[in-house]
Amino acid sequence: MKLFAGCELLYQVPAPAPVVLMLRPRSGAGQWVISEEYQIEPSIPVIEYTDPYGNLCQRLMAPEGQFKIQISLVVETADEIDTAPGAPFVPVQDLPDDTLQFLLPSRYCQSDRLGALAAEITETALPGYDQVEAIRSWIQTRVTYQYGTSDASTSAVETAEKRIGVCRDFAHLGISLCRSINIPARMVVGYLHLLEPMDLHAWFEAFIDGRWYTFDATQKEPRGNRIVVAYGRDAADVALATQYGAMTLEEMRVWVEEKKTDA
Amino acid sequence: MKLFAGCELLYQVPAPAPVVLMLRPRSGAGQWVISEEYQIEPSIPVIEYTDPYGNLCQRLMAPEGQFKIQISLVVETADEIDTAPGAPFVPVQDLPDDTLQFLLPSRYCQSDRLGALAAEITETALPGYDQVEAIRSWIQTRVTYQYGTSDASTSAVETAEKRIGVCRDFAHLGISLCRSINIPARMVVGYLHLLEPMDLHAWFEAFIDGRWYTFDATQKEPRGNRIVVAYGRDAADVALATQYGAMTLEEMRVWVEEKKTDA
Amino acid sequence: MKLFAGCELLYQVPAPAPVVLMLRPRSGAGQWVISEEYQIEPSIPVIEYTDPYGNLCQRLMAPEGQFKIQISLVVETADEIDTAPGAPFVPVQDLPDDTLQFLLPSRYCQSDRLGALAAEITETALPGYDQVEAIRSWIQTRVTYQYGTSDASTSAVETAEKRIGVCRDFAHLGISLCRSINIPARMVVGYLHLLEPMDLHAWFEAFIDGRWYTFDATQKEPRGNRIVVAYGRDAADVALATQYGAMTLEEMRVWVEEKKTDA
Amino acid sequence: MKLFAGCELLYQVPAPAPVVLMLRPRSGAGQWVISEEYQIEPSIPVIEYTDPYGNLCQRLMAPEGQFKIQISLVVETADEIDTAPGAPFVPVQDLPDDTLQFLLPSRYCQSDRLGALAAEITETALPGYDQVEAIRSWIQTRVTYQYGTSDASTSAVETAEKRIGVCRDFAHLGISLCRSINIPARMVVGYLHLLEPMDLHAWFEAFIDGRWYTFDATQKEPRGNRIVVAYGRDAADVALATQYGAMTLEEMRVWVEEKKTDA
Repeated sequence: MKLFAGCELLYQVPAPAPVVLMLRPRSGAGQWVISEEYQIEPSIPVIEYTDPYGNLCQRLMAPEGQFKIQISLVVETADEIDTAPGAPFVPVQDLPDDTLQFLLPSRYCQSDRLGALAAEITETALPGYDQVEAIRSWIQTRVTYQYGTSDASTSAVETAEKRIGVCRDFAHLGISLCRSINIPARMVVGYLHLLEPMDLHAWFEAFIDGRWYTFDATQKEPRGNRIVVAYGRDAADVALATQYGAMTLEEMRVWVEEKKTDA
Repeated sequence: MKLFAGCELLYQVPAPAPVVLMLRPRSGAGQWVISEEYQIEPSIPVIEYTDPYGNLCQRLMAPEGQFKIQISLVVETADEIDTAPGAPFVPVQDLPDDTLQFLLPSRYCQSDRLGALAAEITETALPGYDQVEAIRSWIQTRVTYQYGTSDASTSAVETAEKRIGVCRDFAHLGISLCRSINIPARMVVGYLHLLEPMDLHAWFEAFIDGRWYTFDATQKEPRGNRIVVAYGRDAADVALATQYGAMTLEEMRVWVEEKKTDA
Repeated sequence: MKLFAGCELLYQVPAPAPVVLMLRPRSGAGQWVISEEYQIEPSIPVIEYTDPYGNLCQRLMAPEGQFKIQISLVVETADEIDTAPGAPFVPVQDLPDDTLQFLLPSRYCQSDRLGALAAEITETALPGYDQVEAIRSWIQTRVTYQYGTSDASTSAVETAEKRIGVCRDFAHLGISLCRSINIPARMVVGYLHLLEPMDLHAWFEAFIDGRWYTFDATQKEPRGNRIVVAYGRDAADVALATQYGAMTLEEMRVWVEEKKTDA
Repeated sequence: MKLFAGCELLYQVPAPAPVVLMLRPRSGAGQWVISEEYQIEPSIPVIEYTDPYGNLCQRLMAPEGQFKIQISLVVETADEIDTAPGAPFVPVQDLPDDTLQFLLPSRYCQSDRLGALAAEITETALPGYDQVEAIRSWIQTRVTYQYGTSDASTSAVETAEKRIGVCRDFAHLGISLCRSINIPARMVVGYLHLLEPMDLHAWFEAFIDGRWYTFDATQKEPRGNRIVVAYGRDAADVALATQYGAMTLEEMRVWVEEKKTDA
């Protein structure tokens, strides 16, 4: 499906402050960025670089006063996510070098502390895809989705204890449980069609049978029509806007709609 | 100036063939990609990766039949290129690691064979910016710009001999001469406002006093309003479309216009 | 001083298990690896790769039975660490791209939660080197060094609370406090001459005035004669031996001695 | 076989000059660096970095006067090179991203000009390994190996014409012919046991059936017991010592011997 998606961020900036944005999606497996319109008001110099995870980042100095960032995208996306029940586990010795970092614990994903839980959840699953699906399904049924129950410092260990959180907490828990059974897992942030209420979204990917698969523990049957904006070890790596200074986000708007073939 | 630029490539494809495109500019020093519309017809899966020079490349299989690629850009560009007469040469021992590769000879830039010419041209110039400007100015006055006098296999040594060529030959010669006096130099391809006749363009950059500067030997007074699309050692690295199979480019259209602030 | 250093790891391996080692130091600022002898017994195939932080890693399958790894090094090291009181803070907008990741919180360095403490400690310090030295000195005087008081899951937030730990905890706390005031900081593991009792060691580096400086909160006056083996965000990235399977480390020996110029 | 190998370079340096060395082999498929001793006299600061091809490079300023570099290695090597008659060609669309650069023409490998010759040589060969072996064998029988017939500027096109050269010319021609039929090929420099007369050596690798294979056109039956020191597009990338200034190489010694298991 062709999606029309984007977001608008409106800031009040009391004094010029450095900002790093990560709002520009890349074309890749399952998504093709047909068009992109990226506006910054007032217009100021921006430098773009690629971070260690391959994300395109924009560095700039937010000027004093009102500051607006808007990105609009038209992206061809896959209507279904790929699934592969039974796909086999990749033994660590056969993993590609660049997936090994996604086995390590990270800020919000203390996989070193969740091994017992993971073993329990995946006890009867076949090694590989079915283990990750068991983890995803366990989170989906045992953790309550509720706004305002977690914050920017909540990590997977806390979510495992409290069994409540939002999409990023669900992803952090899923990632941690995968890593603790030696399955590389990474954080994804992006857009999802028909999300209710509409917002930016987070989910995770696990490396199975030679490729990355999409998992989303917030949905009973994870839907397709997703736009990946950034990858990372966890939320620490994929903040779509990181500000180094005082700035107030006054308004944020996110939209994801079907783009009718005409028009 | 805000530029509206882009190109359209129309191919006839007798049998499915792999293609690598390099058409998506990055935002960076002196350019901000406000909007981009990238269309491929018929619509097919595309994978994007970053090449060793940081260029965004798109891999795809061109399907049999008529195949069209179109990219439209709106880019804020600098009206003037930065110049820095007198800016000092960076001794090799102080060059950043990642500039060292741009001292090496490459396919079209046999800097190992052009040292004597470079020494002659830059004899009276101050080391650094003024040397490169002497090289640029020498090429601009001594080499004749003429279509159809060179081809895809023409290299800097031949251009130095024949003193005739097109923009890519001018750039290759400039790059080679810089490298032979230990100034890192790289190829740039992109768009230039008011180019006559309109086409894609090539020029070069040299690393002086801690940063890259733009040089264009095809113009008496190099203008600004340029959109960089790709960087590389020479033309071998920055082909905007590389086809691995028989395909006929039936039509190619390039445009670069001022984008009026309204509309 | 020329150091003769190294370590020996002796494992019992019940069943073949994948291992990633990070034992090969690189030559760099302040250290030159004169000689290295790296032995694995029994001899087995090893693949080497470079991780995202530039560390050389060795991948192998530890065979069943007794398994020994030994590395011996002769390294020329600087007798003193560089210090730079008064060296200025680099504003975030001027930081090199590749240092930005060292501003982010990580597994053991929850810099997002230690801002208040950092502000307090550095209140009267000049921005830059003096802030980091204030942090280092605060840890050195306020945190008790004691073996057995922390473990592999202890993070900076806990160390800030309990005020007790070992070298890696001291480093994690130092790193977290630096990051929380927007100074990039990274973990270092390696060898230190005259460490008592002899063991592998951990310290940290902070990015100030355009380069990385060494800080070690475990010593009143941090000494030189250090061999850096690996860099990372925190201990999660720089485990010198990561095993993915059951293996018992039966014996570990570390040595660092002055290498007499003769012999 | 365990090899004891190394080289010694003795320079006279009239004035301090920057040098980049590429003498430190990496452990990898088919080779394990057991020990390495790397000496520079007089002792001076050296910085190590990894070039775009993964080679470890050492940067230094050669001091005025006599300057000596010596590296001694003990390396476990494979007694035989892997061969795979019949192994299939990888279609360009299935090549890993990082092999694509080894399809491009380069300074000494003008693959864009040797397509006709390659087609002729490989006419009856199965796509893949057998094509490369046909190329290797053609070079081995049709090109005369003779010292002093080529120099540092000789490229594959000239070797194809003159049919005479040394190991690096043989490699350049092999690489060019492979690339012209869309098989990624790269230059290798290193040591070869029993080379006559003893010297550093050059050969090439081609990417077939998902991995790199070793080819050496200077030998009727390419032997094993090779130590890879560096990889690159061609000789421009893999100079083991690049000097940026006047220095005289007074003496060069290379040795490769079997290391008896004892001693």
